[in-house]
This record gives sequence, structure tokens and C-alpha cells, in this order.
Amino acid sequence: MDEEVKLVGYWASPMPPRVIWALKLKGVEYDYIEEDIYNKSELFLQYNPIHKKVPVLVHGGKPICESLVILEYIEDTWPQTPLLPKDAYERALARFWMRFTDEMGENAVSVLTSSGEKGENETKVAEALKILEEQLSLGNTKFFGGETINMVDIAHGWLPHWFECIEQLVGLKLLDPKTLPRLHTWVQDFKQLPIIKESLPDYDRLLIYMKRIRERFTNSTE
Amino acid sequence: MDEEVKLVGYWASPMPPRVIWALKLKGVEYDYIEEDIYNKSELFLQYNPIHKKVPVLVHGGKPICESLVILEYIEDTWPQTPLLPKDAYERALARFWMRFTDEMGENAVSVLTSSGEKGENETKVAEALKILEEQLSLGNTKFFGGETINMVDIAHGWLPHWFECIEQLVGLKLLDPKTLPRLHTWVQDFKQLPIIKESLPDYDRLLIYMKRIRERFTNSTE
Repeated sequence: MDEEVKLVGYWASPMPPRVIWALKLKGVEYDYIEEDIYNKSELFLQYNPIHKKVPVLVHGGKPICESLVILEYIEDTWPQTPLLPKDAYERALARFWMRFTDEMGENAVSVLTSSGEKGENETKVAEALKILEEQLSLGNTKFFGGETINMVDIAHGWLPHWFECIEQLVGLKLLDPKTLPRLHTWVQDFKQLPIIKESLPDYDRLLIYMKRIRERFTNSTE
Repeated sequence: MDEEVKLVGYWASPMPPRVIWALKLKGVEYDYIEEDIYNKSELFLQYNPIHKKVPVLVHGGKPICESLVILEYIEDTWPQTPLLPKDAYERALARFWMRFTDEMGENAVSVLTSSGEKGENETKVAEALKILEEQLSLGNTKFFGGETINMVDIAHGWLPHWFECIEQLVGLKLLDPKTLPRLHTWVQDFKQLPIIKESLPDYDRLLIYMKRIRERFTNSTE
């Protein structure tokens, strides 16, 4: 009971699924707690007083924050079904790409929340997608992790649904099957995996939610 | 010879010393290569084609980029003198704080490069410093790593000299011994450690360099 695993998330956030997927791949039982991020609970603020963000993993009462930090903790704590390569150099490359996708994600959020002309953020996202396409070409494997997914695929897990919603809302098609065939196929393959699919939010519901976020930012005159 | 360790850095950058300190603490022999970051070499761009930034660690001909990724690689490759806690939870906390200091560093750079009134970045840096003070109080140890430094202290290693230069150039005193006594003492203790001190750039030379950076940004009318 002391080793109880709880995950605090929010249905529309792209980061909690990273933790869900890792726990499921390792067969770790956990309780999911939905946090109202618009009216944060006292307990949640105790768990993550600094960033006040989901996900938080609570293991035996102790909170761990930041999705990439949580993924490393999960790997350290439950070594079954390794999600990082064993080789130190390969591990370093995996960590490099996990950071890369977070940076790209920040730029994608800026694309969603900024109005007006094609901006620097869009160019940055387009360049990053091209780099990922090249990575898949170089590796010549189905997933970033090889023939099965690893932590890098999990970290890129915001591309299906979340990035697709951004594209639809902004009226862009950056993840184009013609120019980025491998990455486009990766998105389809990744989201069809049963363990991934069952923990993705409903696309249409997510689209409505993200539409409101976009409107809040782009209609603001403040 | 195949396992040769090279570190590519630039004297004024705050990130290469992280790698230097970790290698020295572990007693790993390496060759230091100074890169002219204003006229990057072909070889350097091959090593780090994506971010094009120092530091790059080259081990047995293979490049590893991003200072925090390099620190993890060093820990994985040379386990002597551990720089991360063994306990998975403590490791997670260490990684949390390593990310925290990078975010704070980005805000500090914005303080340096922005002109005009007291801004959001300054407030963010002030809040982050206060959080670090609280951490040292809670831990009640000389260093973030305990009685000796660990990877968290190394990650905070831009506070001595680099942040002190920013304060001096911007005319701020955020790291005030009156309000942040423990953090102020940490800075003094950290930079007096022989292994740290011998790899810090000359303060006055760094100040002149950073003054030029500030002028380039704040005088720009583009």
C-alpha cells in the first residue's frame, strides 16, 4: 500500500499520456486522478508547488514532476520492458531527441496561440519535423526506438492528435504525407498501437478544447 | 585511442564548464578544443548539426550534444565518483532541479539582453533564486548534493561569474546575501572549490564579453 502508484493528469494535456504509456508498457498498476487544472486542488499544489503542472506521478506518497523526469524515474524503478537503450551512447541520443521534441512542442504551442502571419515558430516546427523525417530515414525502422516503441516514441506522442489538432485549427499541413512520408506513417502506426490508442483523448473533443484555447489567445486584445 | 575523449567548448559559454567539472571530478582525461562560435568549423557543424552549440563531448569519435545529456552520459559511462544519487526518487529530484536551473538560465539571459523597465524575466529569476534558497534551507547542507557537490551543483554552475556578470551589467542585486544568505554562501563555496575555480573564466574578461552581448541586443534598432 505504501508503494501505491498514482498519476495525476488532465484529459486534454499531451504530457500525462507519456506517463500512462510508460506505466502500461511496463505493466505497472496505477490509479489515475483527474485534476481540474482550472481550479487546482490543495493536494495538487502540494505535489507540484513549483510548476503547478500535470502530470505528477505519486509513488508511495512521494511526488515526481515533469514528464521526462517521470519517464526516467519509471525506467529506474521498474526496469522490465526497457524504454531506454542499454548502451550509454544510444541512451544519450535518446535523451537528446526527448529534449528536441519538447522544444518543438513549445514552438507548436506558439503556433496555436499566435494569430497573424506565418511566423518564426511555424518555420521552426517545419524544420524540426523535417529533422525527424531524416532521423526515421537514417534509422530505417518503423519506430524511433526500432521495431518497437521506446521512450523517444513516447516523448513524440503529442504529434498524433495534439499536433494534428493544431494543424487543423491553424489551417496548416506541415505533417504532409508527400513531403514527410516516414513521419506521417510513424504517426499512423504509433496511434494504432492498442496501448497508445486506448489512452489518447477523443480527437473531436480535443479539437473543441484546443479551439477554445486558440480563441482565448488570438482574440485577446490585452 | 579509439576511446579518446574530446570536449569542444567556448571559453565564455556557461555550459562547457559543466562537462569539464564532471570529467575532472571523475578523473577522466580529455582534450579540450576551443571552437570559434562566431566562425564555426565544418567539423563542429558535423558534430552538432542541429543545435550548433557548445559543449560537444566526442568520445571515441562519437559526438554527444546538450550539456545535461552529456552529464548523464558521463555518469552512465564512468560510474566512479557518482554525480547523481543512487536512489531513484533522489535521482528524479536531481533531474528536476537540473531542468529548473536551465529554465532559470534562459530567463537570466533574457534579463541580460533586454533593455528597458523591470520585466517579467527579472521577476521569474528572482522567484527562482528564492526557491533555490528554500531548497538549501530545507536540505540544510553546504551544497545541493549534500556535503559535497553533485550534478545539481554542477548544473547551477552558471550562477557564479555568469549570473554575477549579468547582475553587474544590468545593475541588479538579486543574489543578495541579506535576502538569500544560503544561496549567496553556496556561490562563494562552490567557486572556491579548486576543481571549479581552475575552470572558471576570468571574471573581468567575461564581463567585457557579456557587456558586448548586452550592447548588441539593447542597442539594436532592428
